[in-house]
Amino acid sequence: MQVIESNKCHDGYWKRFKHQSTACQSEMTFSVFFPKGYAADVSINQFSLHDSNLSYPTLFWLSGLTCTDQNFVQKAHVEKAANQWNMLIVAPDTSPRDAGLAGEEDDYDFGTGAGFYLDATKQPWSEHYNMHRYVSEELYQLITQTLPVATEQMGIFGHSMGGHGALTIALKHPDKFKSVSAFAPICQPTQCDWGKKAFAGYLDDIADATMYDACALIEQGKRVSALLVDQGTEDNFYPDQLRTESLVEHCDKFNIPATIRMQPGYDHSYFFIATFIEEHIAFHAQQLGV
Amino acid sequence: MQVIESNKCHDGYWKRFKHQSTACQSEMTFSVFFPKGYAADVSINQFSLHDSNLSYPTLFWLSGLTCTDQNFVQKAHVEKAANQWNMLIVAPDTSPRDAGLAGEEDDYDFGTGAGFYLDATKQPWSEHYNMHRYVSEELYQLITQTLPVATEQMGIFGHSMGGHGALTIALKHPDKFKSVSAFAPICQPTQCDWGKKAFAGYLDDIADATMYDACALIEQGKRVSALLVDQGTEDNFYPDQLRTESLVEHCDKFNIPATIRMQPGYDHSYFFIATFIEEHIAFHAQQLGV
Repeated sequence: MQVIESNKCHDGYWKRFKHQSTACQSEMTFSVFFPKGYAADVSINQFSLHDSNLSYPTLFWLSGLTCTDQNFVQKAHVEKAANQWNMLIVAPDTSPRDAGLAGEEDDYDFGTGAGFYLDATKQPWSEHYNMHRYVSEELYQLITQTLPVATEQMGIFGHSMGGHGALTIALKHPDKFKSVSAFAPICQPTQCDWGKKAFAGYLDDIADATMYDACALIEQGKRVSALLVDQGTEDNFYPDQLRTESLVEHCDKFNIPATIRMQPGYDHSYFFIATFIEEHIAFHAQQLGV
Repeated sequence: MQVIESNKCHDGYWKRFKHQSTACQSEMTFSVFFPKGYAADVSINQFSLHDSNLSYPTLFWLSGLTCTDQNFVQKAHVEKAANQWNMLIVAPDTSPRDAGLAGEEDDYDFGTGAGFYLDATKQPWSEHYNMHRYVSEELYQLITQTLPVATEQMGIFGHSMGGHGALTIALKHPDKFKSVSAFAPICQPTQCDWGKKAFAGYLDDIADATMYDACALIEQGKRVSALLVDQGTEDNFYPDQLRTESLVEHCDKFNIPATIRMQPGYDHSYFFIATFIEEHIAFHAQQLGV
């Protein structure tokens, strides 16, 4: 785990790391925002690792198709809210890079930049494309073992494909992530083109797709204690790829306390995310008892 | 003047325009943020042009080497401050694009993305590379004639090469721009490598360079009524390319009321700009009597 970039912002620091991933069998990159309270507590420029006297609430952000960790870092503007709540924010990449597989770079919605937060079972993808395991096990362990994280105060959120990742990982791992929210998530990927393509390409047995579909997981009895979702009405991918109404129906039917808001005039971009990100972080803070 | 992109953000709108430029003899692109008060006043989606009942304070932002209008639009996060003060913010490109000149794309600090906010006199650059005239005359007229701008409440600011542009254009055109600030500006380009290369390449007579050097303009008697500058101490280009101390000396010697702040730990990036942009916009609002 090596620091490859560091930028001061709003008295905190963005630091970008690289490490060798077991789950993805490749070098992976992620970024962490250390709020100004952290910078005041420890010698941030020396990047001292786990100090047991410190304990910070931490959110994982999962990005959408085509993104690296940098879209969120540069465009979402979480710094002031992270400072306000004294939270760490961790932003991983969206797939392995340069795994060297045939066809990996051909499509924006499959392969590089499109890991879909699942564990592939089909060859040759299964050796590298294991973003579910990477995020929920390997990165989770790396972060909780090397940074001063309050493990009982961890949440997860994301955008589009990353919204799907946040919903499904929160539903599958409530022991690790205690709060969840999403921007324009892919709510029911088994029923949309993006999801069908990903599942057909990454999975040997298409029946496994229900392990990576928020609506299907809810039908299987998985639950979250609360949920906040924002969806822009001018989003080019709404409703066909995102199927927000299916999530509304599933939350209603299975009594999941969900606030799912339609936001008039907003599109699928980070301009939309930046508008509501502070409300999402406040929601996580409330859910986590910060 | 044609809208090519539109994104809602914080209840206002970023709109990106293209138009055929006379000064640059090419198609030019710029972006405008319309604050939420504007969106409430007029039918923003139809983009109705000049309405004489409305009048908005307006800032021009000039970007640095390698940038387009989009770096500022995506990374600076001016929306909340623009909403607070009900200001329009106009962000032009940094040079003509695709002028088709030999060598135009060879260097990051000359040609495309490096217009230096001057009017070239050397062939073949003089036909296209006239960003001083473009910003201070052509775009100024286009904006003031087509948008509901309060022409007595216009300011200018920028970053690095664009900080140099803001300082020199404010010094040369106090009738048009009544307030000025800068982030990590090139304060004395006649004395640094970036400036020397630009002036040698764009100008037939190197003596003309003093028309595009903030310190030289101050020596010539040009003045601004107030000035705010922020400079990060960890900026890779400080002090050699930026020469902040020369600006401090000139402001002291010639009694220009200037607040020039060294910001510990900050670098040359938009992370630095995003940290202090709201203070700059508040400074402009105060100077313009908003």
